[in-house]
Amino acid sequence: MKNFAGTPGTVTGLLLRLLQCLFASGSIAAMATTKSFFNFTAFSYLIASMGLQVFWSFGLAFLDACALAKKKVLHNPVLVSLFVVGDWVTATLSLAAASSSAGITILYFNDLGGCSVREECQKYQLAVALAFLSWITIGISSLIMFWTLAAG
Amino acid sequence: MKNFAGTPGTVTGLLLRLLQCLFASGSIAAMATTKSFFNFTAFSYLIASMGLQVFWSFGLAFLDACALAKKKVLHNPVLVSLFVVGDWVTATLSLAAASSSAGITILYFNDLGGCSVREECQKYQLAVALAFLSWITIGISSLIMFWTLAAG
Repeated sequence: MKNFAGTPGTVTGLLLRLLQCLFASGSIAAMATTKSFFNFTAFSYLIASMGLQVFWSFGLAFLDACALAKKKVLHNPVLVSLFVVGDWVTATLSLAAASSSAGITILYFNDLGGCSVREECQKYQLAVALAFLSWITIGISSLIMFWTLAAG
Repeated sequence: MKNFAGTPGTVTGLLLRLLQCLFASGSIAAMATTKSFFNFTAFSYLIASMGLQVFWSFGLAFLDACALAKKKVLHNPVLVSLFVVGDWVTATLSLAAASSSAGITILYFNDLGGCSVREECQKYQLAVALAFLSWITIGISSLIMFWTLAAG
């Protein structure tokens, strides 16, 4: 398997994983500190999905860091297949969660004419924006992983 | 480039494209015949995204049918790269549209305690379900395309 930027066990790969963790935990923090997120299925789903994202990305960041420290190469086809499946599942869940929350945020704060509680609204919007950023970084990781696997 | 089920210019490829068209047009039909979809940004976005999907899938179905009829092979790397980019863009837009509409449908019909107009609600739910089916078929197509491109 070829070694290029973003593949497991490289510095860029580790950086991507850390960014995913950062954005996803930011999104959880912004959403969980609002007073009424549990009234909305989509917002609760966002928290669940971002939680899964944090676990997955943190695990892989840890693996990357170990591989970097011990100068080991992580290009075992079975391991990469596992990373590909996990990455695709979390990327799809993240996009779905971010979009459904964005749909509701736009509904409340544009279609239904403005938001009543100023601070809550900003938190919802921040959570959605961070979820989309998290999706972009996991999307890049999954494309790189899939390419690594397919290119052999 | 290898020739396997679902690659451009095969019968399974053509079938996948036709299914995408069918599900996307069904979703548009179900959504556009409701009375109040234009009040919701997400529902209007669903129609726009599914419209794009129909155009793209119909164009590729036409190409596949031509290639099948003339027994030509469509495995030019430039052409396949174009298909990959188009497939990924439409797949991402479809998933985002389906999820944001699903978020609003669930908000109205579960979180806010039931739907007032029975027929409208069923149409919204049908449109969302068909959009997800359309996303699944375009997702399969895009994975196959990406694999074809990466495997060379």
